Amino acid sequence: MQSLVFTLSPGLELCKVIERMAPEGGVFTLCDSNTASLVYPLMTQDCPYLNNNTLIVTPAGDENKTLAHLSHIWEELQRLGATRHSLLINMGGGMVTDMGGFAAATFKRGMRCVNVPTTLLGAVDASIGGKTGINFGELKNEIGVFAEAESVIISPIYFNTLRKEEFLSGYAEMLKHGLLQSSESIHSLLAKDATRLDNQEMLELLRNNISVKQKIVEQDPTERGLRKALNLGHTFGHAFESWHLKSGSPVPHGYAVAWGLVCALILSHMHLKFDATLLRDVAKYVERNYGAPQLRCSHYNELVDLMRHDKKNVNATHIQFTLLKAPGKPETGHEAKEDDIKITLDLMRDLMHV
Amino acid sequence: MQSLVFTLSPGLELCKVIERMAPEGGVFTLCDSNTASLVYPLMTQDCPYLNNNTLIVTPAGDENKTLAHLSHIWEELQRLGATRHSLLINMGGGMVTDMGGFAAATFKRGMRCVNVPTTLLGAVDASIGGKTGINFGELKNEIGVFAEAESVIISPIYFNTLRKEEFLSGYAEMLKHGLLQSSESIHSLLAKDATRLDNQEMLELLRNNISVKQKIVEQDPTERGLRKALNLGHTFGHAFESWHLKSGSPVPHGYAVAWGLVCALILSHMHLKFDATLLRDVAKYVERNYGAPQLRCSHYNELVDLMRHDKKNVNATHIQFTLLKAPGKPETGHEAKEDDIKITLDLMRDLMHV
Repeated sequence: MQSLVFTLSPGLELCKVIERMAPEGGVFTLCDSNTASLVYPLMTQDCPYLNNNTLIVTPAGDENKTLAHLSHIWEELQRLGATRHSLLINMGGGMVTDMGGFAAATFKRGMRCVNVPTTLLGAVDASIGGKTGINFGELKNEIGVFAEAESVIISPIYFNTLRKEEFLSGYAEMLKHGLLQSSESIHSLLAKDATRLDNQEMLELLRNNISVKQKIVEQDPTERGLRKALNLGHTFGHAFESWHLKSGSPVPHGYAVAWGLVCALILSHMHLKFDATLLRDVAKYVERNYGAPQLRCSHYNELVDLMRHDKKNVNATHIQFTLLKAPGKPETGHEAKEDDIKITLDLMRDLMHV
Repeated sequence: MQSLVFTLSPGLELCKVIERMAPEGGVFTLCDSNTASLVYPLMTQDCPYLNNNTLIVTPAGDENKTLAHLSHIWEELQRLGATRHSLLINMGGGMVTDMGGFAAATFKRGMRCVNVPTTLLGAVDASIGGKTGINFGELKNEIGVFAEAESVIISPIYFNTLRKEEFLSGYAEMLKHGLLQSSESIHSLLAKDATRLDNQEMLELLRNNISVKQKIVEQDPTERGLRKALNLGHTFGHAFESWHLKSGSPVPHGYAVAWGLVCALILSHMHLKFDATLLRDVAKYVERNYGAPQLRCSHYNELVDLMRHDKKNVNATHIQFTLLKAPGKPETGHEAKEDDIKITLDLMRDLMHV
């Protein structure tokens, strides 16, 4: 099982983790071009196991999560003399933990690895649960494996360098976890002004919030069943994300997920009697913080088409959703008809004043 | 656990396996350029699930087990519309099952796969036990994962198309399994003329022989301890193989392994009192079928150096060997001094008349 460390002193904790792991073949670090200059120098002050001779840097940005850059990481590990007993530390956002996790899982059939997520989205989602990989042939995360980092060091101290949109993008996944946990949990998240939490508050929030994902992943690491619960909001969300991208005005992943959550709750209300008051509260919070997608009826067919081709669909004739009977009560593999999807989009526009 | 099917009708058995697995996302086949023309057409006669539109062909030869060719397999799977619920059948020697197994393990984070080994070496070694991967940066099997095929269809009916050297190369790994199993097992293998077995005899021999590897892999799939027993003869063997390659006269892998087994038994005799009579019997069998490496004292230092850099060594100051106290009684992680290695090479030359 993946060990999670929550801390306000990530450098010192990383140091302790490395000492406990006692890797025989040396310690290597992967950063992107941003974390290499902003985070890594601070970490080396607290953690003497890091040194510049074993730092591997890859260009920042999800568009660089490619086979060419993965191949460069393998080459560097080889050139620097890493062995199957060495440790790779992935220090960065989801792009770094995804690609670095895959590099580690496949180098000499698997070297050890630790994640140090530096974004909120990375901390609550990408760095946890072992989904690793790269984009390939224009498809996201097309090539990869399930392989958990042995340890994840989670700290909010980097988050004040994030742009507001990046931060809110991560908070949307926290809302999803809140909905999957309990009524208390989602109400508590909706009551907060996400962008004004201090580090200590954020740390406690992370500890509780991430445990939701971790418990689900433990029971179903390779997404045969229960783990699909974590797709709540993502069938609609991916469609919004792709639609915006194609129309030339991309939105952050978390914004699309936030809108997708509202749609998933509307469909949950229609099919499973999910509570209407909570649905309205979530919609209000999302509208205030994330705005709403500027949809017209003429866009509906295109959105339905995008959902049909979501890679998590078993086939293209039925579109599958994760819905909620109530907070903490997910139902996976729920099929919806095209008409219900369109009614959902209508209701979303009403609720969010589009 | 990996299910093994031993048969003289591999096409019919493959058909049954596919029916049992009932893959939702279609059936795809990977062949190399030889098996595509020699084996695949025969299999399609017995197995209507195979069809030419979903056949992926990769160039034959271990030198083509590269990232570029792996990438081509991923592209083809994508172009042909494979999903995470599809099945990939790897039909060929170790090169095909290694690279195809890795492609399947990583495509959309893992699609299903079945191996149909068509060489003796593939049947007794590469296709069993989940070691998958590609060569990278001039190192063999540098990038890969442990991922077992769900099923392996094992049949000797293809072996009569193998060159004698290829066949004997596989038989050397069978001798290794015999030594790891029991006195009865190794004596029975030494009593046979490997190249004159009929299909039925071979099938029974395979069934017993492969069970040795399978039992070890089940207990230690990722080679933390016990699985190192399967390296018997391989520390010396890899050194012989590399030495021949560097000197411009490459030998088949199994030939180097056969010579390595003789050396491992000599060292086992010196350190663990392995029975001298059986050692002599093995040496005689190996000399008669595989010849012997034309070593001189002046080559010893180079061979020791090659052993020092074997990737299975934890560090370069101690050279580790798997030895035998007796047939069926391996000891892994046994360290030997340089002097003992040189004495071993001397004795090998005496025994095998070099």
